[in-house]
Amino acid sequence: MSKDTAGLPPTIPGRRKFINTAALASLAGVVACTDKGGSAATATPAAGSAPTGGAHAASNSTHLKPGELDTYYGLWSGGHTGDMRVLGLPSGREIHRIPCFVPDALVGWGVTNESKKIMGTKADGNLKYTVADSHHTHASYKDGNYDGRYAWINDKINSRIARIRLDYFVCDKITELPNVQGFHGIFPDKRDPVDPAINYTTRVFCGAEFSIPLPNTGSDDASKYRSMFTCVDAESMEVRWQVLIDGNCDLTATSYDGKLAATNQYNTEMGAKYEDMMSAERDACLFFNVARIEAAVKAGKFKTYGDSKVPVVDGTHEANKDAKTALTAYVSVPKNPHGVNASPDQKYFICAGKLSPTGTVIELAKVLDWFDGKLEKLDDAIVAEVELGLGPLHTAFDGRGNAYTTLFLDSQVVKWNVEKAIAFHKGDKTAKYVVDRIDVQYQPGHLNASQSETIAADGKYLAVGCKFSKDRFLPVGPLHPENEQLIDISGEKMVLLADHPVRGEPHDFIIFKRDLVRPKQVYALDDFPLAIKDPKDSGVVRNGKKVTVKMTSQAPAFSLREFKLKKGDEVTLILTNLDKVEDLTHGFAIPKYNVNFIVNPQETASVSFVADKPGVYWCYCTHFCHALHLEMRTRMIVEA
Amino acid sequence: MSKDTAGLPPTIPGRRKFINTAALASLAGVVACTDKGGSAATATPAAGSAPTGGAHAASNSTHLKPGELDTYYGLWSGGHTGDMRVLGLPSGREIHRIPCFVPDALVGWGVTNESKKIMGTKADGNLKYTVADSHHTHASYKDGNYDGRYAWINDKINSRIARIRLDYFVCDKITELPNVQGFHGIFPDKRDPVDPAINYTTRVFCGAEFSIPLPNTGSDDASKYRSMFTCVDAESMEVRWQVLIDGNCDLTATSYDGKLAATNQYNTEMGAKYEDMMSAERDACLFFNVARIEAAVKAGKFKTYGDSKVPVVDGTHEANKDAKTALTAYVSVPKNPHGVNASPDQKYFICAGKLSPTGTVIELAKVLDWFDGKLEKLDDAIVAEVELGLGPLHTAFDGRGNAYTTLFLDSQVVKWNVEKAIAFHKGDKTAKYVVDRIDVQYQPGHLNASQSETIAADGKYLAVGCKFSKDRFLPVGPLHPENEQLIDISGEKMVLLADHPVRGEPHDFIIFKRDLVRPKQVYALDDFPLAIKDPKDSGVVRNGKKVTVKMTSQAPAFSLREFKLKKGDEVTLILTNLDKVEDLTHGFAIPKYNVNFIVNPQETASVSFVADKPGVYWCYCTHFCHALHLEMRTRMIVEA
Repeated sequence: MSKDTAGLPPTIPGRRKFINTAALASLAGVVACTDKGGSAATATPAAGSAPTGGAHAASNSTHLKPGELDTYYGLWSGGHTGDMRVLGLPSGREIHRIPCFVPDALVGWGVTNESKKIMGTKADGNLKYTVADSHHTHASYKDGNYDGRYAWINDKINSRIARIRLDYFVCDKITELPNVQGFHGIFPDKRDPVDPAINYTTRVFCGAEFSIPLPNTGSDDASKYRSMFTCVDAESMEVRWQVLIDGNCDLTATSYDGKLAATNQYNTEMGAKYEDMMSAERDACLFFNVARIEAAVKAGKFKTYGDSKVPVVDGTHEANKDAKTALTAYVSVPKNPHGVNASPDQKYFICAGKLSPTGTVIELAKVLDWFDGKLEKLDDAIVAEVELGLGPLHTAFDGRGNAYTTLFLDSQVVKWNVEKAIAFHKGDKTAKYVVDRIDVQYQPGHLNASQSETIAADGKYLAVGCKFSKDRFLPVGPLHPENEQLIDISGEKMVLLADHPVRGEPHDFIIFKRDLVRPKQVYALDDFPLAIKDPKDSGVVRNGKKVTVKMTSQAPAFSLREFKLKKGDEVTLILTNLDKVEDLTHGFAIPKYNVNFIVNPQETASVSFVADKPGVYWCYCTHFCHALHLEMRTRMIVEA
Repeated sequence: MSKDTAGLPPTIPGRRKFINTAALASLAGVVACTDKGGSAATATPAAGSAPTGGAHAASNSTHLKPGELDTYYGLWSGGHTGDMRVLGLPSGREIHRIPCFVPDALVGWGVTNESKKIMGTKADGNLKYTVADSHHTHASYKDGNYDGRYAWINDKINSRIARIRLDYFVCDKITELPNVQGFHGIFPDKRDPVDPAINYTTRVFCGAEFSIPLPNTGSDDASKYRSMFTCVDAESMEVRWQVLIDGNCDLTATSYDGKLAATNQYNTEMGAKYEDMMSAERDACLFFNVARIEAAVKAGKFKTYGDSKVPVVDGTHEANKDAKTALTAYVSVPKNPHGVNASPDQKYFICAGKLSPTGTVIELAKVLDWFDGKLEKLDDAIVAEVELGLGPLHTAFDGRGNAYTTLFLDSQVVKWNVEKAIAFHKGDKTAKYVVDRIDVQYQPGHLNASQSETIAADGKYLAVGCKFSKDRFLPVGPLHPENEQLIDISGEKMVLLADHPVRGEPHDFIIFKRDLVRPKQVYALDDFPLAIKDPKDSGVVRNGKKVTVKMTSQAPAFSLREFKLKKGDEVTLILTNLDKVEDLTHGFAIPKYNVNFIVNPQETASVSFVADKPGVYWCYCTHFCHALHLEMRTRMIVEA
């Protein structure tokens, strides 16, 4: 890449002008330029000539014949909707949405007592939060590949982490992290750092992006602003420990041996304004020595903050100067890096430069050497730092030694060879590490390849989350969809296969082979303590003002054709779906009472409300179930 | 159709057994059989041999090349999600969701003051409803085709109607209908019944499915149960008038001349249990003489009910025995009909029999004749009543004289020729009205063809909303998506092109040519009374405890880098997005304060909250906008 390209390179002036009107406003001049990269290394295929799938045989693979099944699952963060989206790939079809942080009026998430308990309520019984901002989703590992047990997803607004069970595709736990704001990056560990028998995920690491005063009681003392890195137990979903750090946490990665977790830091300056946040030429990738941190906690070397009982160890520079006892290690990375990703060969973490046009390759063995006192200068763990293009954000892998990095400002994905980059960095200026570039539409953020961050990376498909769609879909008013593009990476050159509009804003996602999960399609009646197992047990049970209504559903009828209440009754209504047939879901709505929820086959759910409005209310099945679905009703009669 | 087919015909035993395990439970024996149809008429192509698009040239048309635009818009009801989904066709891609009845955490629908005003709040300022069940969506007409002004959608749970502006693709009005429950069918008129200059939509008709006691105050007097048909003003969205009827209202249709509206009635029995609801062999299609009703209202011949000021005219049998003064006309239709649809040749309404295997064709000119005293027997307006298959639900049209009816129990779409059906009904038993049948997967409800219910019906694409998807997509736990299938209807035989999973439950939709709407992609600053037009006007304005925070956004910064509040302040925060670039939306989240919303280019939005939690809160941009998006923040400092 020539020096020109560090500014606003006019490779394809018209296109650049178009794509950058939005993304570059006020940015001119702030993009850093490293002088390490040579133009020779990136003088590979010109952008703009990227092939698309239109005339390419591979394109047909994304259009499945009616009835044909996808070969991969995708788990997509739902963004502001606070849910997890399940896609089939290569078709790109959305098969499911799993509500997590935000109410969902289809499922009755946030309506039923069962879901409210998971989501969390205030003293008055109302939901604590109804908005969210989910960014990152990752799944549990075993022996370096997904094991189909769990996935996790973050809510940045309220620093919550949710767990999804991948048998029923439902959220079963949500934990709010103490002492932090702006929980952003998330990654499960891949095995235990000490016990080799624990070859699967038992911890989830969470980075907090915003520094806040500790304690956060209303004073604005700059010296008290801090951020923390958090470890959550994968099973109990309780917070195990936190690490007080210098700087902030952006994205998160974990090593395959379980020993290291890391977070990228774009604001080592701990600035409060964006100009301050980008004043330093280098920020950091901050490594955590998991075993040492847990030993410190065990040894009682921690503090707690405010009401929280969570042990917090000290991971600041000042407290970790001695490598042999250090809990943390701050490897320097150029200006405001963003993504950090673990290569499937288990050897490297790769940091994307964001405001620097570089990718930084950190060798994990050398970081461990540093912790062991065998590497004098920590930054010697950096084995490559090469120019990739403007605005590198995230990196995916094909399992054949190539990395794929999104270039936000260039609106491209660059394919580059990691070992050649290392050779180039070592001094071999003939090593052409850039293999290919492809234009994407437009301004890509996250990307991920099939099985990318597992030892089974298979290099078939690459999905790219483009933040702007601009002209790629029919206009629908001021709010545009984003554009998730699918790229065939099975060959030397990348081939664009399809554009998929998505509702804002998915951020991160993972793609894995369909045989890695084993979903169940019918619930077990016994899993629900309130289950009404026989229609004969239906009825209204009164205890003063406390009334329990017990009902079952079997197409096309509810077990009660009517039920009577008195004004002021405090009602809990329990509904068990006794239908056993796969896909035979019923709904239950009460007009004017703001109640709607579904019960899947053999599921039980309950709602509580005060019968404060006298009248006759036709409760009806809201989920099409039968030719007599419209006739499937029961009357709630609230006597004045 | 032979007598066998009225029960459980074993045409393709394996398939039938599979598809009907769910849908037919408890229904055996209740399906009515008319003896009008002869088996000769339906002895056309055998089901099960339907071609799919896999090996057919047309299939490629659904897979657009990257960057290629769809040629049709689809407006899809969002079902339980209470939104409207905007699809591009033939790709089937969802380009947008327009929140209406239910909060939406992306847009901040239900969070901003502006959206809460549209949705409706309780005395305590909280939203009145957060659940919905939207079924039917239709758009405004001019000269018999869509004019791109408005669309409407219903909420069955709380009997609300929402209007969508098709310039900005946003909901701008919601009206709750008085005196009714279970508002289901919805259709705008197509021109004025009296004034020929009004050649566009000015009314929207709404049918209420559930009869309730009038007044509904808690007593359960069977004699007082009634349903009403409602007319809403298309511009003001106020209720113009209602008609008290016998029986109930299911789906709704309107004539092209503006003179007639109609609703199908599946429960003329006014039964409370499903067995009662299907006791009569014939129910009705109920016609409304719009001009006469409005004359009656004008003449003061109406009542009002309870708190409602809406004029209610009497449309019962008893009050409308004289055709020459009648407001309503009850045409008989076999057993529990469901859909009623207006043919694009402007001549017929077609009723689908549901529990009867028939389609009933009613000639509108003859209904008008009856109102004019020129037709003695109202049922003589029925010009055809022919067998179509098991469980007919809805009908679409291709503009070439053919109708397409979903057969819920047969899991098929049947293509039939309307004029041939009329000939057959008249006695020409050689008239083979069934043209083709195609299997769909599985149990179809609504269907619609491109431009179907307009004079511009073009017979290109047919979309079919299948209620069960069963084995058509990768498994995702107990809650299955539904399956919207796209069929090529441009030829003699129908060709299945693609399966599209959708989140439950879309019900109805319309498909129209993309040039019929003219969306705007940037708002006008002046459209927002609270707009902050200059960043210099930003700041905190205090009036005792009432505090107004004024702010603007321009990537990558908010105009205030911080703002201070005191604990207990009653805050209104106003944010104007001054970015003018298309697609440059910003978000605004306040941690722990349950606030997140977006502002599109040149849009202003506001939120109100009490600053009850002291501390420093990093408000941040939640909608990716710029390379420095992560750095786009402002601090809300709430002093103790």
